[in-house]
Amino acid sequence: MSHKIAILGASGYTGAELVRLIATHPGMEIAALGANSKAGQGMAQVFPHLRHLDLPDLVTIDEIGFADIDLCFCALPHKTSQEVISALPRDLRIVDLSADFRLRDPAAYEKWYGNPHAAVELQKEAVYGLTEFYRDEIRAARLVAGTGCNAATGQYLLRPLIAAGVIDLEDIILDLKCGVSGAGRSLRENLLHAELSEGYHAYAVGGTHRHLGEFDQEFSAIAGRDVRIQFTPHLVPANRGILATGYVRGEAGAIHDALAAQYDDEPFIELLPMGEAPSTRHVRGSNFCHIGVVADRIPGKTIVIAALDNLTKGSSGQALQNANLMLDIQETEGLMLAPVFP
Amino acid sequence: MSHKIAILGASGYTGAELVRLIATHPGMEIAALGANSKAGQGMAQVFPHLRHLDLPDLVTIDEIGFADIDLCFCALPHKTSQEVISALPRDLRIVDLSADFRLRDPAAYEKWYGNPHAAVELQKEAVYGLTEFYRDEIRAARLVAGTGCNAATGQYLLRPLIAAGVIDLEDIILDLKCGVSGAGRSLRENLLHAELSEGYHAYAVGGTHRHLGEFDQEFSAIAGRDVRIQFTPHLVPANRGILATGYVRGEAGAIHDALAAQYDDEPFIELLPMGEAPSTRHVRGSNFCHIGVVADRIPGKTIVIAALDNLTKGSSGQALQNANLMLDIQETEGLMLAPVFP
Amino acid sequence: MSHKIAILGASGYTGAELVRLIATHPGMEIAALGANSKAGQGMAQVFPHLRHLDLPDLVTIDEIGFADIDLCFCALPHKTSQEVISALPRDLRIVDLSADFRLRDPAAYEKWYGNPHAAVELQKEAVYGLTEFYRDEIRAARLVAGTGCNAATGQYLLRPLIAAGVIDLEDIILDLKCGVSGAGRSLRENLLHAELSEGYHAYAVGGTHRHLGEFDQEFSAIAGRDVRIQFTPHLVPANRGILATGYVRGEAGAIHDALAAQYDDEPFIELLPMGEAPSTRHVRGSNFCHIGVVADRIPGKTIVIAALDNLTKGSSGQALQNANLMLDIQETEGLMLAPVFP
Amino acid sequence: MSHKIAILGASGYTGAELVRLIATHPGMEIAALGANSKAGQGMAQVFPHLRHLDLPDLVTIDEIGFADIDLCFCALPHKTSQEVISALPRDLRIVDLSADFRLRDPAAYEKWYGNPHAAVELQKEAVYGLTEFYRDEIRAARLVAGTGCNAATGQYLLRPLIAAGVIDLEDIILDLKCGVSGAGRSLRENLLHAELSEGYHAYAVGGTHRHLGEFDQEFSAIAGRDVRIQFTPHLVPANRGILATGYVRGEAGAIHDALAAQYDDEPFIELLPMGEAPSTRHVRGSNFCHIGVVADRIPGKTIVIAALDNLTKGSSGQALQNANLMLDIQETEGLMLAPVFP
Repeated sequence: MSHKIAILGASGYTGAELVRLIATHPGMEIAALGANSKAGQGMAQVFPHLRHLDLPDLVTIDEIGFADIDLCFCALPHKTSQEVISALPRDLRIVDLSADFRLRDPAAYEKWYGNPHAAVELQKEAVYGLTEFYRDEIRAARLVAGTGCNAATGQYLLRPLIAAGVIDLEDIILDLKCGVSGAGRSLRENLLHAELSEGYHAYAVGGTHRHLGEFDQEFSAIAGRDVRIQFTPHLVPANRGILATGYVRGEAGAIHDALAAQYDDEPFIELLPMGEAPSTRHVRGSNFCHIGVVADRIPGKTIVIAALDNLTKGSSGQALQNANLMLDIQETEGLMLAPVFP
Repeated sequence: MSHKIAILGASGYTGAELVRLIATHPGMEIAALGANSKAGQGMAQVFPHLRHLDLPDLVTIDEIGFADIDLCFCALPHKTSQEVISALPRDLRIVDLSADFRLRDPAAYEKWYGNPHAAVELQKEAVYGLTEFYRDEIRAARLVAGTGCNAATGQYLLRPLIAAGVIDLEDIILDLKCGVSGAGRSLRENLLHAELSEGYHAYAVGGTHRHLGEFDQEFSAIAGRDVRIQFTPHLVPANRGILATGYVRGEAGAIHDALAAQYDDEPFIELLPMGEAPSTRHVRGSNFCHIGVVADRIPGKTIVIAALDNLTKGSSGQALQNANLMLDIQETEGLMLAPVFP
Repeated sequence: MSHKIAILGASGYTGAELVRLIATHPGMEIAALGANSKAGQGMAQVFPHLRHLDLPDLVTIDEIGFADIDLCFCALPHKTSQEVISALPRDLRIVDLSADFRLRDPAAYEKWYGNPHAAVELQKEAVYGLTEFYRDEIRAARLVAGTGCNAATGQYLLRPLIAAGVIDLEDIILDLKCGVSGAGRSLRENLLHAELSEGYHAYAVGGTHRHLGEFDQEFSAIAGRDVRIQFTPHLVPANRGILATGYVRGEAGAIHDALAAQYDDEPFIELLPMGEAPSTRHVRGSNFCHIGVVADRIPGKTIVIAALDNLTKGSSGQALQNANLMLDIQETEGLMLAPVFP
Repeated sequence: MSHKIAILGASGYTGAELVRLIATHPGMEIAALGANSKAGQGMAQVFPHLRHLDLPDLVTIDEIGFADIDLCFCALPHKTSQEVISALPRDLRIVDLSADFRLRDPAAYEKWYGNPHAAVELQKEAVYGLTEFYRDEIRAARLVAGTGCNAATGQYLLRPLIAAGVIDLEDIILDLKCGVSGAGRSLRENLLHAELSEGYHAYAVGGTHRHLGEFDQEFSAIAGRDVRIQFTPHLVPANRGILATGYVRGEAGAIHDALAAQYDDEPFIELLPMGEAPSTRHVRGSNFCHIGVVADRIPGKTIVIAALDNLTKGSSGQALQNANLMLDIQETEGLMLAPVFP
């Protein structure tokens, strides 16, 4: 049986990535593609790489008949998403890829996003979409909030260490390097090829990146006390990929063990042998996350590093993994594509 | 039923691309990976992006028991390939990705490759692997010679035009731009990132590129007379992709019609609407080839452009497509992966 | 003695490139930087790479006192330039980098740019700024029109061949590959890093690129008859550089001789030994143009290739070279910077 | 008066960068270019971007008559350098760009480089070449040891903070991102374009990078006690540039003040306004270093970031700056070239 799928925000990168993945998914069929600004166009005009697919044309969200839809992906901008989802049927299964339902606390949402939440009830209902840690809740959920791509990477690295009590909670530093597509298809001068290629820089330095809201929420919940990490993202000239380098206090052996205990049975998380470091180029285009652990020369200090593809494991692949759970499909369906290298 | 597959030359890019594609192919199973120089290593050491797969370790070719193998891909260097294949069982189905069996005429081979052919009998037996034009022969073949990646691109563009008689055979120019992976994983100074990125140049200028041997052989056969085109490849700073810009004399309408007649039912060749030009970024990582036709402002002159991924449609994807035919599997099996963009 | 220089349009790439070059020019001093949209900002905010320089803040054009200015560079958008220059003092020396004064014929201007020219008198006065071919006129000029960057590249390649009568005028093809900065600092989706990197495509195919207006004007004037070439630009993922591959009928020897005769004494044009092909990476950031000639395997056909940096020799370097002439400064002053490689 | 200069190792990137810089230096003249492996070739063959220069051909080191040479740059590989320099005249002024004379302690050298030092006497004589901190010693030196490029970046960031006592010495983390040219023109598989572009990874993780020897030596000397920092380099797909992100304990205000006090009069070090972060793209091709300071959201923690071009300020530009001092030339001569952006 094939489930009917709608994608809202189909003209953005995460929307296109969903289409790419679902294209070879045997249990899903794309029934509607919503994109208000490009309604009326065919997907081949907006994304020529998808022209071989037999897809419905882009329509406005109002034009979609949701009664026939089994599950809806919302790949809309932040703030728009909460407005749109508020107006959708209350029994429609939704995987939201925006930031709107990641934070459970309305005050935290307002602090990080600068405006009061317009759908507080839905905020309470939403399940946080980090699959490997909320699998049961996601299976039962109606509304799942996809995580931030940076937030996912950092959590894959640090959650098991905090949970296992193998690192000092006072001194956690996450130095993250991310590719360009994480900023979306937005017309900003600093995203032009001529501005970006052949250079790199830190941004949102000093603890102002919004994904810190997720780190604070999740790490504090695990630890049972307030946890505040340092987090500095850097923009590097590549289209896909997040590399998170974590500096922690703790023994490398215990850290590797904690990660192994957590991930040994996970289909998408690959823990490298002790001492090896991962690379974003080895997960590109795939739903895999590679994690490495290396002891520092200074006793008691360890470097942990995670690599994933921000558009796949960091957003659209994660979303599909969650949708599989919600629709009672094999969790890995449509997601076992090998990374594309070189 | 799953066919047992061997890949010789598994430590190169086309070998790795074959593994990537076969990884989600339901009718094939990788039984042996040969790579003399890296024998003894696991595939995850040589290609960490494949570490999630359960693959046999690399072995020397001598160690492989070919009796159990249903089909063998040879992704070995030119010249090595003819030696290795000569020593393989004569009833083993083989798809060769090297240049060794592309040219049917031993003299032509010697002219373009500089040495006499060491397996002339096999050279005669081999079927040229441009699937869409040799489908029946490939289905019945034991030994298929994968085409050059540039040669495939140019032929997709020009074969239907020569066959339909809609262009002048005297003035055909192919200006080709190709990505870096076409040169393979070879240690050459001019393939270093610092040498290549942020610049581009023509090479093998003046008609010295070996793929001209294939153009000469194939175009002359179609036309029933000698056809010699001009062909200038350029190296551009991207890993994957070939863009072939053809300058021909002929009416754009008739040219578009000839291409449509040839390709309308082909699963992997997409003819764009008249006046549109393709881009390599829209076929990356996939087995698709996009073709565009634009009339020049000068009456009677037309520009035709083709884009494909050199590692997929240009070599390993083509090889798998041919293997599917040889093993009586659905031709598109394992090959419908959508391109990866951005 | 130091000449006082104004730059209008200082917030764009060609404006910044002018500042970069003039920074080490001993005979010029930047007295005013105009940029209406960013007036009030310091240059370090708009272009942090220039922060070490002691530069005037950006102002609106109205705020500039032109009485003190010896020469004004206009690096404004097309159409804006003719309006602004019309309002400047009639005795002010101006080097315009826009397209507004490249075409001498108002009808040709309207054909290629889609609107009637608003300053026809100035159009007549303007001298075409291809230094090596208009040196005397430029020395005496008040208003010099910088050439298109693609137009400059193509002309360096073809003018001497047309003038010397060594090629057939009926079959000239220019297949050009250009970097991203040629499109300027414009907010267009197809100039985003995520859209551009790792791919390449042809644009303005079929003879619609505006620089054809310059080719038509100049080549016809040299030949004394109408000359129409084919010209297809391609966008490649690099920030700087134009590589023009020309396909002509003519003997390679005569062609090389014609180029040598023209360029042997030129300080910025380097003719490579017969058979060698240039690369954009070897002229990056410099005012040099490298030219190569290769005989095709087909007798009587020759490939000629030119490489230059679109922002330097193709626009701002050319502009400075012309300004040197207009101000009676050594022509090469400030322009002998070696290319930056890698 | 023009000083006669020899460059040994002229076929590598730092050698070529020296030639590029000296090309417009009014007080130096390149008298000899040594490169044993490419002796007999012209520089235009080895580095076509320098073909416009009138340079001596490459020769073996033995062929150079050092009696006429005023200063010799050694851009040779590590270990080769100490052998070659041992055999040079003892009164020849030398700026060495290798790692051979950076560490003053023979035991430290052997620990980090794995072999005993073959020229211990010279090791004692050599002055460490971080110009801004060893200016007087360099002026009087015969043999100057250029610093590691990563080591220079980290020291520009941290030396003033350690000297001023404004940071905790126990918890210093340097997360560094560097471009590809830092690895030189070496034929290594992991430096191929196809391996490197579109991905990034950490290497020498855990405190094994040799530049730590310099950090240990210098920081301990300043502090008057053992200082051990954490240092993790990452390779990113760009040709030039080092971005060093430092995580320190200390007040941002005091840190900014300490940097300002150190660098306000320095011609090449630009301290950004508090809260701003630098980018490698804004120093590319130049001898400038940009430094930024940002307070973290966690009180008492500060992020400090430095950007420079590894081939210029990180090696060849630094070397020329030192040579200027040694030859009693204006320190900034030949080095005020503005960065090349975009």
